[in-house]
Amino acid sequence: MKALIPYKKKNAKSRLSPALTLEEREEFVELMLRDVVSSLQEAGVKEIDILTTPDNGVPKDLQATVVLNEHDLNEAINEYLSHEQKPILIIMADLPLVRAEHIKEIISKTEDVVIVPGKGGGTNIIFVKDPSNFHVKYYGSSFLNHCNIANDRKCSVYVYDSFLLSTDIDEPHDLVEIILHGHGNSREYVTERFDMETGMARAKIAYSDA
Amino acid sequence: MKALIPYKKKNAKSRLSPALTLEEREEFVELMLRDVVSSLQEAGVKEIDILTTPDNGVPKDLQATVVLNEHDLNEAINEYLSHEQKPILIIMADLPLVRAEHIKEIISKTEDVVIVPGKGGGTNIIFVKDPSNFHVKYYGSSFLNHCNIANDRKCSVYVYDSFLLSTDIDEPHDLVEIILHGHGNSREYVTERFDMETGMARAKIAYSDA
Repeated sequence: MKALIPYKKKNAKSRLSPALTLEEREEFVELMLRDVVSSLQEAGVKEIDILTTPDNGVPKDLQATVVLNEHDLNEAINEYLSHEQKPILIIMADLPLVRAEHIKEIISKTEDVVIVPGKGGGTNIIFVKDPSNFHVKYYGSSFLNHCNIANDRKCSVYVYDSFLLSTDIDEPHDLVEIILHGHGNSREYVTERFDMETGMARAKIAYSDA
Repeated sequence: MKALIPYKKKNAKSRLSPALTLEEREEFVELMLRDVVSSLQEAGVKEIDILTTPDNGVPKDLQATVVLNEHDLNEAINEYLSHEQKPILIIMADLPLVRAEHIKEIISKTEDVVIVPGKGGGTNIIFVKDPSNFHVKYYGSSFLNHCNIANDRKCSVYVYDSFLLSTDIDEPHDLVEIILHGHGNSREYVTERFDMETGMARAKIAYSDA
């Protein structure tokens, strides 16, 4: 099997801008990518492809292959899938809570497709045994899209239920989960910059909205 | 083992007020309670206690025992635990995404304490084998509190990682998860009232903020 990580650094994560500057966000997405790659490697995944555009600058020291494609996310991934024979694990770069154990468990499932739902209808990881018999459709409610596509292709589906993997880091309140449940580079980065505010409601990171 | 469900109906879920009126919220929390009780029963849990205050009106047709206590959540639960010998599963009433399979898996764990983290540092379910050797501390970051208490008491801990169980229904954007992943009474209630809005970001329910 191979892992595919779509990656965008340039002006990434604009919804985090109340908490992090542009420069910080670009630094932070690279650290999250490093944590995702580390967990994949720890799980024994040997082939890791990072799908990106030429202006995004994947760090050279990562043991991964950079695949360049100027098209949008769906088109770029679908072009990639159409040329692949091996099972492909598509994992988002903003999942720093992923651990090697998650990856091992996902790739050991016997179903044709494993879908890991994200908050708000997203697909944070999808593992496709036969990439030539599948296509992706991110955005909108991609979780439902991918369930429907699998159904149309007569693929069996396992929905992998994980809080840590449902937590893609998109909005400021997601950062607190890194303090609570994270590890590696991204946790160090967040804990250096933010305190946790707790009370009767959900904990949040403390930052000035000004 | 026994299950304990702390329950508040009166003026419940004020953070849902942008989406639901007071009357609707009170109706809705009762439906969520029904879904939680159903999943416990389907998992074979025979003894279910609902911990509440006299003014909250637990529906009479539920096959559960009402335990009244006027104290605050922590004090009421800790009084309850101090009188119990059997393993206790404390499960929040606002977890309508819970399925029987989750419950079966949690109560089969061999660790002394199983903690199911909620979003933002909460504890959505905790299973305590020896209630006389434990106390709860909800609010603040109760997930960390409970890990620390278990550690102080020399209890082994299993952290149960589930997106569906991390999703307590507290804020309007949580309602979309019921449309996407829910079942039972609560799903029927939400799908009758709300459409899902999708786009590039996380899906939300559509409601007027006016």
